Amino acid sequence: MPFARHLILAMLGGALCATAAIAHENENPAVEARHSQMHLHAFNLGILGRMAQGQAEYDAELAQVAADNLAVIAGTDWHAYFPEGTAVGEVEDTRALPAIWTNMADFEAKQQALADAAKAMAGVAGTDLASVQGAMGAVGETCSACHKAYRQPD
Amino acid sequence: MPFARHLILAMLGGALCATAAIAHENENPAVEARHSQMHLHAFNLGILGRMAQGQAEYDAELAQVAADNLAVIAGTDWHAYFPEGTAVGEVEDTRALPAIWTNMADFEAKQQALADAAKAMAGVAGTDLASVQGAMGAVGETCSACHKAYRQPD
Repeated sequence: MPFARHLILAMLGGALCATAAIAHENENPAVEARHSQMHLHAFNLGILGRMAQGQAEYDAELAQVAADNLAVIAGTDWHAYFPEGTAVGEVEDTRALPAIWTNMADFEAKQQALADAAKAMAGVAGTDLASVQGAMGAVGETCSACHKAYRQPD
Repeated sequence: MPFARHLILAMLGGALCATAAIAHENENPAVEARHSQMHLHAFNLGILGRMAQGQAEYDAELAQVAADNLAVIAGTDWHAYFPEGTAVGEVEDTRALPAIWTNMADFEAKQQALADAAKAMAGVAGTDLASVQGAMGAVGETCSACHKAYRQPD
């Protein structure tokens, strides 16, 4: 029965994937997923930011890869990472404000703004350093706008 | 000076993004990035796996979103998450075997196999439960193949 065999292998594979991923097991899975989303934003944006600031030499290929990653990852669907009942005070290890769920359309618009700014960055990141610097402001503004509205201050 | 203003805002935004993301500050940033990558695989694959196993009701829209996310995220460029010098024994909190760096072409091929299988899943996930179940085996096999070759057993 190929289906049964495949399903067993799939579950095995899924379990292995899940095991690989769970470095911090006590965290709510959705919270962990959105932290992962933010980590991947930060890691890729950091590559571009260090170049823009002159802390790292401009590398067209690396800049393009980081910008492509950021654009693609920012443009994914985050809904499942922000289920109801996972605001600050409802689960551990989150700073997500309840306002996210009462202003979901605006939250989504702010996510879309990041995705759009990241896409614009990806359109020019491999050109030259000035292009990265020029596109960086809009990306940073979208980060700030969403965090200011929807993330509890430290 | 619009450029200076934008750069300052960008750095502010970048810093905010980075602050948001760093929940576990002692981890190597590249290790954290690849853990984040695996977490997002596992979270989205988990949605599909629970439906495939009958632990959750099939939801065409949710299945499609999860499969699209998995396909897009798996298809990003992971190179910067696996820099030289970050194998098990070289940095904390990783099970990445040194074989990754001595067999990089094969490691990349195994990543591509996951991306291809996830893309095939995304092509059918919104159709019906049987389609999800049918596509799951190939995804799980690519997880297992890479973990078997390149991840230290528990």
